[in-house]
Amino acid sequence: MSKDNVKAIVFDIFGTVVDWRSGLIRELTAFGRGRGIELDWVQFADEWRGMYQPSLEEVRSGRRPWTILDELHRESLVKLLDKNGVRGLAPHEIEHLNTIWHRLPPWPDVIEGLLRLKRRYIIGTLSNGNVGLMTRLAKNVGLPWDVILGAETARAYKPMPEAYARTAMYLNLKPAEVMLVAAHNGDLTAASGVGMRTAFVVRPTEYGTGQQKDFKAERAWDVITDSFNGLADAMGCARF
Amino acid sequence: MSKDNVKAIVFDIFGTVVDWRSGLIRELTAFGRGRGIELDWVQFADEWRGMYQPSLEEVRSGRRPWTILDELHRESLVKLLDKNGVRGLAPHEIEHLNTIWHRLPPWPDVIEGLLRLKRRYIIGTLSNGNVGLMTRLAKNVGLPWDVILGAETARAYKPMPEAYARTAMYLNLKPAEVMLVAAHNGDLTAASGVGMRTAFVVRPTEYGTGQQKDFKAERAWDVITDSFNGLADAMGCARF
Repeated sequence: MSKDNVKAIVFDIFGTVVDWRSGLIRELTAFGRGRGIELDWVQFADEWRGMYQPSLEEVRSGRRPWTILDELHRESLVKLLDKNGVRGLAPHEIEHLNTIWHRLPPWPDVIEGLLRLKRRYIIGTLSNGNVGLMTRLAKNVGLPWDVILGAETARAYKPMPEAYARTAMYLNLKPAEVMLVAAHNGDLTAASGVGMRTAFVVRPTEYGTGQQKDFKAERAWDVITDSFNGLADAMGCARF
Repeated sequence: MSKDNVKAIVFDIFGTVVDWRSGLIRELTAFGRGRGIELDWVQFADEWRGMYQPSLEEVRSGRRPWTILDELHRESLVKLLDKNGVRGLAPHEIEHLNTIWHRLPPWPDVIEGLLRLKRRYIIGTLSNGNVGLMTRLAKNVGLPWDVILGAETARAYKPMPEAYARTAMYLNLKPAEVMLVAAHNGDLTAASGVGMRTAFVVRPTEYGTGQQKDFKAERAWDVITDSFNGLADAMGCARF
């Protein structure tokens, strides 16, 4: 099998490893309640995430110089608060909200699956989140990465091919020796384009009841599963 | 105290965290015995390490393009084997010898100290070793890093200031919020030059009985100690 040569498994994070939407909604709602701000925080969460790809595209297109995701998140947040008439927050409150991305809950199957995979493979991130964000998220919620890699170390946002190719390079591996795990067919298509192995883990509630896509594998990815334990099984890792 | 603002502690690796000399001597000797090659492997180890700074200097000076340490190690090894009349090794044997650097033993106080520090601080590498080397070393010997950073992610070998400044940048921290731990006064001098906090851990047998320097702190570093447990004490970390 083509996945027999895999030596490192790298992961998309937002949506694949952590449930960003539930995490945002929970913390935003708690913040609003504490400050007495009435707002549809579910919609706020979805709009904040909705500003993600357009903000990345500014960088990918070359229209703006390299900017880390924490900064893009902050700019989007400030705009969105303003649009919703929320003004006068203190800098530490903005920071508290922006670092919700550093405290997102993993899906329930994640930690056990990662610990199984870690005994046999190098495991790491391949995220558009910057190193500082990924490091704090891992520490806050217990993600046991061997290495933090991604857009910032590659200086290219996914799905640009450099984001994948340079991540394999940092690991001293050929792309075919690295597997990307993602809940998004588009991410796997780009990884596959540089020769990486691919695993699709379906996350049908990433976008809540309004999810529009990624309900199933759109190509014959090397692994297709619905949990990290399923992935660990497919990759030959013993159960605890 | 100036060290009260420290949020991340990064470590020099060769000599500070791992006992490269004992590790090299042990594995080289075992290899020589297995292959029936008679050689002074102690001298071989010291000469191999002796080629380290000159090989880095080729890159630092701009005389050669960016090259990772695994590759510099390999070139030095091949030259040194040839000089000693050891010829005809298979590629996998060269690779086995070159990856001794991926399997070096930590000093006895390291793991406990790191685990204590990790509960309170982000802990990571700031090494001239490349990401692939550092990741495998950590996995092989159990170093519990939160993040792997250093020369390769900064694209600059220590003691160039960029190696330190860019490492703080990757962590979203000011240099004054990052502490470098090293057994080498020169490394700490460079870190201090960009505003980092500093901790000196004396390793008086790094170079065996022939050690010439770094027997004591040459400046008033923020912490001066003889073990990682001493460092953890100084940084306010509870004992297990």
